[in-house]
Amino acid sequence: MDNQFSHVRIVMIGTSHAGNIGAAARAMKVMGLSRLYLVAPRCRMNEDTLAMSASAFDVIDGIKIVDRLEDALEGCVSAYGASARVRGMDWPMLPPRAAAERMAVEVQQGDVAWVFGREDSGLSNDELRQCQTHVHIPTNPNYSSLNVAAAVQVLCYETRVALLGDAVPAPKKVAQGSEKATIEAMEHFYTHLEEAMVDIEFHDPAAPKQTMTRLRRLFNRVELETMELSILRGVLTGIQRFARLAKTKK
Amino acid sequence: MDNQFSHVRIVMIGTSHAGNIGAAARAMKVMGLSRLYLVAPRCRMNEDTLAMSASAFDVIDGIKIVDRLEDALEGCVSAYGASARVRGMDWPMLPPRAAAERMAVEVQQGDVAWVFGREDSGLSNDELRQCQTHVHIPTNPNYSSLNVAAAVQVLCYETRVALLGDAVPAPKKVAQGSEKATIEAMEHFYTHLEEAMVDIEFHDPAAPKQTMTRLRRLFNRVELETMELSILRGVLTGIQRFARLAKTKK
Repeated sequence: MDNQFSHVRIVMIGTSHAGNIGAAARAMKVMGLSRLYLVAPRCRMNEDTLAMSASAFDVIDGIKIVDRLEDALEGCVSAYGASARVRGMDWPMLPPRAAAERMAVEVQQGDVAWVFGREDSGLSNDELRQCQTHVHIPTNPNYSSLNVAAAVQVLCYETRVALLGDAVPAPKKVAQGSEKATIEAMEHFYTHLEEAMVDIEFHDPAAPKQTMTRLRRLFNRVELETMELSILRGVLTGIQRFARLAKTKK
Repeated sequence: MDNQFSHVRIVMIGTSHAGNIGAAARAMKVMGLSRLYLVAPRCRMNEDTLAMSASAFDVIDGIKIVDRLEDALEGCVSAYGASARVRGMDWPMLPPRAAAERMAVEVQQGDVAWVFGREDSGLSNDELRQCQTHVHIPTNPNYSSLNVAAAVQVLCYETRVALLGDAVPAPKKVAQGSEKATIEAMEHFYTHLEEAMVDIEFHDPAAPKQTMTRLRRLFNRVELETMELSILRGVLTGIQRFARLAKTKK
């Protein structure tokens, strides 16, 4: 059980108020979570951090500060981006409870992350695209100013309820190759995919349109297994071989 | 709907940090609640209150300060006391979700209240006895230091979820191209996919192995939309063009 809690990461991007980091650490610890990542924070931790942490010093001490969201998600099988705004992106979206319930299953396969944005502007579209699922905490449409540490509290609470719940199915025995691909492996796949799409002149990075976003959304949704990923990587390599051959002979 | 939200009171007893009152007001407003009662607060509201309220000034302005819990509960049909400690009292106890669901029924009969205790010592046994039900937010047994405004946030969140009920996700308008592809269109896609896989020599129909089965399983699982299907058909056509070009020039 405790092991499952240790698979959940909290990722805060571009935090600008030091007190919010402390309040988030407290919110996490009170729900049994401990792994906090700060991506390019816009403040230094200070006495406000410690005061708001209410002695959750072990969480504070364990904080990992990284430059990019990719670094915070390294090795994760799934990431959930908390977003107050409803975007035009049409991305898979779950309410907190359903997201936590799915996460409670995913922790059996690896690390998972809740990703939170800046106090003033939330997550960028690019950051959201790195999360397979968006989570919208239902708020008052006339006043959706949810404090970031309060958002951390709500999702950590839902995480605890889901992890403790008896709704969690027994650990599935995972067959060789049917483990869920990591986020990192998926990012390599997307890079490869984009290269191949350029090679067959289906995609022009200079005039990107929506194509790559749509393909990313599609493959995010399918939750690729490692075996499937290696088949697709093989397909891409095959595409590139012929595309380059055709061009050298043009 | 909104009327139901106006039947929910938040009652804070003996609060000693002015900032917590502001943070609670913000936590309430973001979930659509507005009626805050302070019972014998041990602080005066000050600039911390306003700063932490994040402009939830209407909630702050509407605060009722009373001397006794009875005054805050006057006219209520039901009160829920939030308690971190498990008492020897053997009182009816519900987890937050079940309590919120019951409250969502009770608001149809009158006002209901969530009652929160002091930062340092919570609710007294006497105060708890004035609440018909106790609510225990599940916390880490080794660190149950839930900030009072964070507790308000969690229970206001559960209140909103319960009051909105199944109404939470608005029916999605199906955008052009986001209808699910038909079985027939999928079969045409699989035929096209197999042709393209043969063209790049990734698949040999004479020695099929598992490749096509695995790809079919993958694309079945993703439940392609018509727009996505047409992107993939475009990709396949692009693959074939280059593969055939490469071969004619071999």
